[in-house]
Amino acid sequence: MKELAAFEAGIKLGALFHQFVGVPVSLENAEILEKAMKSCILLQPYVVDADVRIDRKRVLEKLSRFNYCSLEGDMIFAKVEVEVNGFRATGVLEWDEERKYPLMKLITE
Amino acid sequence: MKELAAFEAGIKLGALFHQFVGVPVSLENAEILEKAMKSCILLQPYVVDADVRIDRKRVLEKLSRFNYCSLEGDMIFAKVEVEVNGFRATGVLEWDEERKYPLMKLITE
Amino acid sequence: MKELAAFEAGIKLGALFHQFVGVPVSLENAEILEKAMKSCILLQPYVVDADVRIDRKRVLEKLSRFNYCSLEGDMIFAKVEVEVNGFRATGVLEWDEERKYPLMKLITE
Amino acid sequence: MKELAAFEAGIKLGALFHQFVGVPVSLENAEILEKAMKSCILLQPYVVDADVRIDRKRVLEKLSRFNYCSLEGDMIFAKVEVEVNGFRATGVLEWDEERKYPLMKLITE
Repeated sequence: MKELAAFEAGIKLGALFHQFVGVPVSLENAEILEKAMKSCILLQPYVVDADVRIDRKRVLEKLSRFNYCSLEGDMIFAKVEVEVNGFRATGVLEWDEERKYPLMKLITE
Repeated sequence: MKELAAFEAGIKLGALFHQFVGVPVSLENAEILEKAMKSCILLQPYVVDADVRIDRKRVLEKLSRFNYCSLEGDMIFAKVEVEVNGFRATGVLEWDEERKYPLMKLITE
Repeated sequence: MKELAAFEAGIKLGALFHQFVGVPVSLENAEILEKAMKSCILLQPYVVDADVRIDRKRVLEKLSRFNYCSLEGDMIFAKVEVEVNGFRATGVLEWDEERKYPLMKLITE
Repeated sequence: MKELAAFEAGIKLGALFHQFVGVPVSLENAEILEKAMKSCILLQPYVVDADVRIDRKRVLEKLSRFNYCSLEGDMIFAKVEVEVNGFRATGVLEWDEERKYPLMKLITE
């Protein structure tokens, strides 16, 4: 059932965002955070692939005087591909500047 | 499209779980936490109804010596109903004792 | 020992910030979130008083097109008073615009 | 002032716990999570050293049928050393089985 794959893709993106927003981030640990975030998605049921990227430019813009900042919605790109009973769905999380919102989009085959 | 409603329902459950797991909880503040968690779901796009319940019995079983504990997956029941372009989907989060897992299920019309 | 009270005050502020940053917030649920956040601090060991306020003006400025936003560091004010073995310490969390940082300050008697 | 160092050590442990509890964890990603968690502590002000360990035995005991579980308080050991104006303080987070609590202890020189 296509809906199940879509549902599972949604779960993963909602989980990722709310687990990791707030994490201390800088150019120094962005890569290790990306890997940790990806590893968490890959553990979850039905996931076949995942990609997480932290926007270094945004991080730089928001650096505090202590040289790091909190991870926020406008810094995260994520893509997760799930497969449930042969049906695939891909979810993408990407900041939407116009809506000022970390928009999650569904791509189905 | 049915899948979109399913996707959105998934997002809400994943978000709820990963935002609130870890919150200090006891019998004293379980009700206010339920209300706060519900209020967060209701703000999100496409949500038409939501219900959140914290299992007091589980909370009691896990109370630390300081008389509260961390909110964990086996204490949360949540239900969210979304509507996207006329299509409805309901997602339910409930602890599955056999799988030792906070299972999220999709109910479509 | 004064240090213990200071340590405990620090724990509470670090916990509050990282538990609740990312929560969906708008003018509609800011009050219930404040109450829930306060209730969580009050459960923790040695706390004698707590205050949490969400800056509505900042929330308004960051509202997405979906009419809510994620709770961020520049929207939270919190104050926690702890007492350990007769020693008191107060911790305050407040956004520092100059440092672009959710600064936590210690006030001891 | 010794209290400031204690306060800062407390902040770091409270932050770590509430940011990362709930993260999907298994034997596969425990090491990368430890590194990511440590990297987050090291970014924060006044920190001179940090150590984070995830208890693999506990993870194994709580594995769900999907072969991972949520990171919980009884799986985390953390140690953070801070220095403020020449004063040092070390905070340790370790599960206390008797109190059923993720106890945070202060060690000052």
